[in-house]
Amino acid sequence: MPRYKLILEYDGAPFVGWQRQEKGLSVQGLLEEAAAALCGQKITVIGAGRTDAGVHALGQAAHLDLPKTFEPRTIRKALNYHLRAIYAKYSELSPKDAGNPVTVLDVAETGEDFHARFSAIYRRYCYRILNRSAPPALHRGLLWHIPVALDSEAMAEGGAFLRGHHDFTSFRAVGCQAQSAEKTLDRLEIERQGDEIRIHVGARSFLHHQVRNIAGTLRLVGEGKWPPERVKEALEAHDRRAAGPTAPAHGLYLVEVRYD
Amino acid sequence: MPRYKLILEYDGAPFVGWQRQEKGLSVQGLLEEAAAALCGQKITVIGAGRTDAGVHALGQAAHLDLPKTFEPRTIRKALNYHLRAIYAKYSELSPKDAGNPVTVLDVAETGEDFHARFSAIYRRYCYRILNRSAPPALHRGLLWHIPVALDSEAMAEGGAFLRGHHDFTSFRAVGCQAQSAEKTLDRLEIERQGDEIRIHVGARSFLHHQVRNIAGTLRLVGEGKWPPERVKEALEAHDRRAAGPTAPAHGLYLVEVRYD
Repeated sequence: MPRYKLILEYDGAPFVGWQRQEKGLSVQGLLEEAAAALCGQKITVIGAGRTDAGVHALGQAAHLDLPKTFEPRTIRKALNYHLRAIYAKYSELSPKDAGNPVTVLDVAETGEDFHARFSAIYRRYCYRILNRSAPPALHRGLLWHIPVALDSEAMAEGGAFLRGHHDFTSFRAVGCQAQSAEKTLDRLEIERQGDEIRIHVGARSFLHHQVRNIAGTLRLVGEGKWPPERVKEALEAHDRRAAGPTAPAHGLYLVEVRYD
Repeated sequence: MPRYKLILEYDGAPFVGWQRQEKGLSVQGLLEEAAAALCGQKITVIGAGRTDAGVHALGQAAHLDLPKTFEPRTIRKALNYHLRAIYAKYSELSPKDAGNPVTVLDVAETGEDFHARFSAIYRRYCYRILNRSAPPALHRGLLWHIPVALDSEAMAEGGAFLRGHHDFTSFRAVGCQAQSAEKTLDRLEIERQGDEIRIHVGARSFLHHQVRNIAGTLRLVGEGKWPPERVKEALEAHDRRAAGPTAPAHGLYLVEVRYD
């Protein structure tokens, strides 16, 4: 069976998350329904990362095996058509009004040794904060609104303590299933663009809630409630309670997944 | 009565347009309800431009007279609170889920000779096109999706014929109420950023549908259906039928209104 790699953009708002669940609409479930509509049989879609409910993607990667060979552009167009039509039924809107909350940006045929999750060597996320008094009108649900002025330089100073290889117990969800809390954070940068602050992070892999817990902690530094050095103390405590609260899902974007 | 100037951001999607109407929710009507909730009496809000249904604003200007003096930041916060609460009732969502489709970015006290519409000396608009095969997932309703590859340099060449003082009859809506079709387009620039093409225009004032008719015409040039020179012919025909179709409202943004 030919295997295809997909690159996906999605709006996390309407979904219970990436992963198919008993109840509620998932990104994976919607994609599998669209693939089934294309092929006339049940298809499994495997994603590079199981994003939480509300988390967005600019470049999630996934793979699926199809019963026969198609042109990649045919797959892209057919999936986007079915994604819209199936989502319209769930949302009880017209396909035009519902649009595509999940869109296939690219499709490529790949070898059967390719696995979207296990072959990934690097993942990039971005956490977006709108830092102004007025709430967002145009990007509702697409960033975390923090009305108090944040010091992005202090946030960068605090964030620098997290770069490199560490035990990230203080920044992992209590229920995180990973065997080890040791991870290497290759990139952590704070970018300010007008009213917006973006936290860019990159690593081979992440712990559950790691980026949102980093964002929630750096917010305390940005507000001046924590000196930047306290991020180092929180990291070294190896205790979830030592770090800040979990930032909301709707500010988080899976930007890119890289393969060899 | 003290007069205040407001700067507003809004998502055009839920509204019948800026202007209060017999039926349907307007931006002006929602603002007037919010101002009435603040003051306990009927308030009129005057906007710099009457944007059409679906058109967005990053920096619409407006003014209103209040029965007593308030701190500008008190007005901003109170209006944003009431805008959210009143919109939630209309949309039958919780205030948290509904958010603020209209948000007051700034409030300033101004003299009573200030008039948001008649004192304006310059208006900037931006028309946003997503130019890629896949439909938008994250910015649904926030840009015009054109899947066919557009030549932005040809669009810039065609657009250059529109800069300056002209009779814009070919680019005005048939029902446009303006006395004269002569306008001076001070700025028309095409910017490409990755998958997005932005048409930036600026003038003292615009005719009804002028920017959307320009966008719909430049699209024909971008697709290669028209040579750039045909924009000049369309302009000189002084006939609406000589120019291209009207681009959809949801790609258009009122960016800024300037005063002396």
